[in-house]
Formats: sequence, C-alpha cells, structure tokens
Amino acid sequence: MDLRKKIRTIPNFPKEGILFYDVMSLFQDAPAFRQAVDDLVEYFMKKDMHFDKVVSTEARGFILGSVLAYEFHAGFVPLRKPGKLPYKKIKQEFKTEYSTDAFEIHEDAIEKGESVLIVDDLCATAGTACAAINLVEMLGGKVNGMAFLVELTFLKGIEKLKGYDTFSLLKFDNENVKEEKT
Amino acid sequence: MDLRKKIRTIPNFPKEGILFYDVMSLFQDAPAFRQAVDDLVEYFMKKDMHFDKVVSTEARGFILGSVLAYEFHAGFVPLRKPGKLPYKKIKQEFKTEYSTDAFEIHEDAIEKGESVLIVDDLCATAGTACAAINLVEMLGGKVNGMAFLVELTFLKGIEKLKGYDTFSLLKFDNENVKEEKT
Repeated sequence: MDLRKKIRTIPNFPKEGILFYDVMSLFQDAPAFRQAVDDLVEYFMKKDMHFDKVVSTEARGFILGSVLAYEFHAGFVPLRKPGKLPYKKIKQEFKTEYSTDAFEIHEDAIEKGESVLIVDDLCATAGTACAAINLVEMLGGKVNGMAFLVELTFLKGIEKLKGYDTFSLLKFDNENVKEEKT
Repeated sequence: MDLRKKIRTIPNFPKEGILFYDVMSLFQDAPAFRQAVDDLVEYFMKKDMHFDKVVSTEARGFILGSVLAYEFHAGFVPLRKPGKLPYKKIKQEFKTEYSTDAFEIHEDAIEKGESVLIVDDLCATAGTACAAINLVEMLGGKVNGMAFLVELTFLKGIEKLKGYDTFSLLKFDNENVKEEKT
C-alpha cells in the first residue's frame, strides 16, 4: 500500500496560500492506519530499542503516540497547551510559522534516566519537536528516538534534531506547505 | 492491579470546589495503561464485536481511542473543536457543566452502515458522548459500542446513553466531581 496516497491535501488551509497535508484521511483508513503504526514500530524494534515513555504533543500527536506507547509497553505522556494539565508542571515556549505558543508537562511524568520516544504526526520546522525534547531533558529523561508520520523535507526541521535518532515514515517536498499545529 | 488507585485526584481544578480525576497519572504508568486498554478491548472482544471505526473527542479521548482502533483493526476518527478540521465537515453543539461548545467531524470519516465504537476517557454528564452519537448517526454510522475509562456515576450521564452498549471500566461516586473536557 502506498501510504503517501492516503494523505489528502487541502489548499489554502489554515491560511491562504498554504497546502495542508491531512493525516486524518490516513487515520480513518483502517489498513493504512495499521500499516503506518507497524512501520513506525518496526524501525525501532529492529534496533532492539526499549522505551519507558512515549511523549506526544496535543492534539493530533496523541493519535499515533498512544498506540506506539502501547506497542512498546511504555507509559504515555501528553504535552499540553498551557492551563490544561491539572498537576505540578513545567513549561516550554516554542515558535510556529504563525506565532509563539507553549507546551506543559507534568513534573512526575518522566523519571531521571528513563528512555523516551517522542512521536508526532508531522515534522515541519520542528519547533514543537524541539520543545518536546527540552521538556523531556529538563525532567532528566533521555530522548532515544523520534518518530514522525510525515516530514516536510524542504522546511529542513529535521536538521535541528541532529544527534537524535529520528525516523520519518513519509517525506514530502513541496514548497507550498507550512507547519500548522492544531 | 487496582487501576482506580492509578487515577490521581486534584482538588479545585479546573475551578474552586471541583475535584478533578486525572487520567494522565494512569496513562503514564506503563502496566496500568496496558491493562486499561486490554480490559476495555476484552469487554467487546468477548462479545465477538467488530468495528469499522473508532470515534473519540479532542483531546484526551484520542489517547485510548486510537489504541482501541488499532486493536480492533478499525480506522480512527477524531472529533474536533470548530475550525480544526481542514476538509468538508458537519457540526454538533453540546453543553458542558460550564458552557456550550461544539464538535466537528469530517463528512467522509464514516460511511453509511459502518459499525462504530465511541471511546472517551471520562463519562460525566455525557454531553460530549451524546454529541458524538449524533455526529456518527448523522453520517449514517451505527454506534454499536461506547467505552469509557472513568464514569462519574453520581452525574448519571450514562442514563442518557440507554439503548447503547456502554462499558465503563472504573466507576467513581463522588459528589464533588464535575465534568471537564479539556
């Protein structure tokens, strides 16, 4: 199955001139969703890697992140927009194409020395990925892997993640595409 | 393992006088997360039920919903707050304890006659669950099951879901608890 064809493109969303790559059209397709998960898991399984926690950002990141947490017998840790988490937490700001935003993580979500896999649906400028790394490392976790369903290669976000073991399942090179985190 | 003990309670969140039941403390605990998923899956597997789609609401609902979609070899369909979905969609308003809100679903996310499982982390007044049912049925889907990690029994939301096959893994009866959808 060509998973690339399961990603629908939407012109002028969320803003005029932006071509949006819609991962929901893949998620709602049962065989495609299953294959995407299995391919992401396989990359790290083949390396015999172990993770204590899988960390993902609100909200689409949760969809793949929680399945990978289950498959790796890891705990799942959501990074949320400010004000959503109820317990003691720390915050990291980041920039998107449009604005400055922030994510929070519960202080007890990761213990010192734990092995962490960061999962997201999309890697564009990698602003959210860098914020996720910072939050994990501030808590003493070790980011041993990063998995993305889609990478927008022309935005070169992946270059900011040098030194980390990153895997992007589907790569798109289209200069009309910009990052949008909803 | 007593999964109830993995749910942390937070007084006065998100408002004074509210006792918040925090499912994130369970999700971040690997064995507890795994057992919760397995117990929810087992209830429907034992009945030999099949689902084409699993539907969950933004954002915490995605965490269990996507794992159950994977386990049932189903597609995953997110219900999102207005303005987040990029493609053709329909909308359903609902009431929470605090305000009126709405969810949207992509028009092509469910096909006529498909078997649907609705999954959420929490059932309180069931306002979001009823909105989810309406959206699925407007698209011609058949809601054959509803799974909740936590049910706040004293709010009696489950009574609004009569006629549907509902399963709540953990039931809490505490009159200080109110629904909060974040």
